[in-house]
Amino acid sequence: MRMPGGFRYAATYAGIRKVAKDDLALIVSDSPASAAAVFTKNRVAAGPVIVARQNLRASRGRMQAILANAGNANCATPTAEKVAIETSGATAELLGIKANQVLPASTGVIGVPLDARCIIDCLFRLKETLDPSGFDAVASAILTTDTRPKTAFASIRGDRTTLAGMAKGSGMIHPRMATTLAFVMTDAVVTPAALRTALKQAIERSFNRISVDGDTSTNDTVAVFANGGSKFTPSVKEFGEALAEVLASLAQQIVRDGEGAHKFVTIDVSGAATDAAAEKIARSIANSPLVKTAIAGSDPNWGRVLSAAGNAGVPFDPRQADIEMQGVTVCKGGLAANFSEDELKKKLDDPECVIRFNLRGRGRGKTRFWTCDLTEEYIRINASYRT
Amino acid sequence: MRMPGGFRYAATYAGIRKVAKDDLALIVSDSPASAAAVFTKNRVAAGPVIVARQNLRASRGRMQAILANAGNANCATPTAEKVAIETSGATAELLGIKANQVLPASTGVIGVPLDARCIIDCLFRLKETLDPSGFDAVASAILTTDTRPKTAFASIRGDRTTLAGMAKGSGMIHPRMATTLAFVMTDAVVTPAALRTALKQAIERSFNRISVDGDTSTNDTVAVFANGGSKFTPSVKEFGEALAEVLASLAQQIVRDGEGAHKFVTIDVSGAATDAAAEKIARSIANSPLVKTAIAGSDPNWGRVLSAAGNAGVPFDPRQADIEMQGVTVCKGGLAANFSEDELKKKLDDPECVIRFNLRGRGRGKTRFWTCDLTEEYIRINASYRT
Repeated sequence: MRMPGGFRYAATYAGIRKVAKDDLALIVSDSPASAAAVFTKNRVAAGPVIVARQNLRASRGRMQAILANAGNANCATPTAEKVAIETSGATAELLGIKANQVLPASTGVIGVPLDARCIIDCLFRLKETLDPSGFDAVASAILTTDTRPKTAFASIRGDRTTLAGMAKGSGMIHPRMATTLAFVMTDAVVTPAALRTALKQAIERSFNRISVDGDTSTNDTVAVFANGGSKFTPSVKEFGEALAEVLASLAQQIVRDGEGAHKFVTIDVSGAATDAAAEKIARSIANSPLVKTAIAGSDPNWGRVLSAAGNAGVPFDPRQADIEMQGVTVCKGGLAANFSEDELKKKLDDPECVIRFNLRGRGRGKTRFWTCDLTEEYIRINASYRT
Repeated sequence: MRMPGGFRYAATYAGIRKVAKDDLALIVSDSPASAAAVFTKNRVAAGPVIVARQNLRASRGRMQAILANAGNANCATPTAEKVAIETSGATAELLGIKANQVLPASTGVIGVPLDARCIIDCLFRLKETLDPSGFDAVASAILTTDTRPKTAFASIRGDRTTLAGMAKGSGMIHPRMATTLAFVMTDAVVTPAALRTALKQAIERSFNRISVDGDTSTNDTVAVFANGGSKFTPSVKEFGEALAEVLASLAQQIVRDGEGAHKFVTIDVSGAATDAAAEKIARSIANSPLVKTAIAGSDPNWGRVLSAAGNAGVPFDPRQADIEMQGVTVCKGGLAANFSEDELKKKLDDPECVIRFNLRGRGRGKTRFWTCDLTEEYIRINASYRT
């Protein structure tokens, strides 16, 4: 697959994080692109989130650059907004575009002032090294506790138009948008309004269906740029599906790289009254520390799954509940099924786990949700993140 | 302080749990007592919870015995309700009281059938050993992963009337009632209706203000028996306060014994628009795995506290937020305050941690909440509970 045309990328080490590893990245579209983004719903929004929201509105969804840094969230400091405005302003000036055409994004520690100079001093070098082949370097520069980069690609009708996405995030992944940084570039012809709609729908089927630890950060941003470089206008449906494919892949990669996670868990809920009810049940199972630790220990403790479902705040009759783990029926009509615990324990050692919760109701509500197990490593990582 | 008069207690090993440690307990009031109880809000309710609810209603809040077992939740099995009815029926027969005057309660593994015979075979022995001095034996018999028994006492006007409470619970503690087993006995003269009201209010100030891991079990029950043996009728206020004192102590002991917990964390929120808003913020901070792991690591990462508050779904202006940890101001008006990180790290090694979140609003909404840190030990305990 070819990369989407008309985008160039550059990354460098600006000294924002202690380790000498790229921490500043620039993505530029050769021409103004339709832009859409969704941001954290946290009441405490970082400087770059506030400025990105404003720029997106002021530019009426026509933007040209993304300036992202890792190592500092630029949040809850006296200068947060000012630094975001200054650095994206300087970027715009250097590129000869409008200030509101730059989308800033940051990730890292909260409450430590971010030095605008660190960034501004690197901008010229970044601009000079912008290159269509810099995609992977940028995908690496935005990482924090991630153990690997996350990228995903899709194409529409052969290579008439393509999409390339990257994401960062391994903890704090919450099933209400609010998650991580993700940037998707495409050369499809899409209006800003159509892009917004497509993004909203794709998010519902991707980032809103994952959970690592139930926490939501102050900086989460998912942005899509469509610069029309391919001159090809995909149908709403085909573009929506391609975008959802890229975002679902990125979202799942984030779960797979969940802090300390050893297992990837798919949760299927069906037979609920509505999709929304199924989603509540799936989220409750996915967020239950008792379910997540049971999976970590390969313990077929379906009672915890049933109990977590019972906590979802959705009315259902437990006597209608069937539960499968790794394809084995462990609970039938709310009661223990006949299965070999030892064999199932072995199956649960697999890094891919599937929990199916079927309400056998007349309802057709269903959903699919992704999460990971909760391990001692998660605690180790998070008890010492700053030290 | 004297123990409340007119109550007798007995415990024995009935072979319900594998380890040969008392797992069956009986509490009997010499005369019918006013009874009130609150139960789990989980949609999946254990057999004893269903039967206890029915008996409480059928007896119009006049009960005489509590039959409790550990080692098996008697939940999600084909016989759950039947076993609860049979065993409390047999208890009533033996004691010469009505079947609906027995309150059954169970705790332990879900989905494994509980053998009614185990219990029924032990009832005669239990009855024979009933004794006013058996309180501590019962408090031990109801434990599961707890590392120590939990008891609390209060008296009104000298010893005119007294209260004695016991509780069990160390994981699955959720700030919406739904928590653990707790039984409070008193010889005060209180009508069933007054007892219900007092319990409801006391729960709000105790069990609804704690959180260990955000999960809610299928069996949680808090019951109070008042047998009037002291012939003393306390005022509504003095009885309510004494009951709240006992329940708050039990709730805090549960948090202190939280699975794998090393630190007890008090969260004070003030300056919110309403008490309900303060509670939402406190609960969000208390339930955040990132806050709880930071505390485990003695990391003064106040950004996580601010971010967790931002996720509470309550509108507030972060620029009005002050945060204190161990009495040290770490965040002033949403921004980093000037403090010595090294000194504060040392203070956070203390097993008693206090987080204060003040919104400096004109609001007077405030709350106090209790939680514990999240450690690797929690994972170890819960990844292997059944093995």
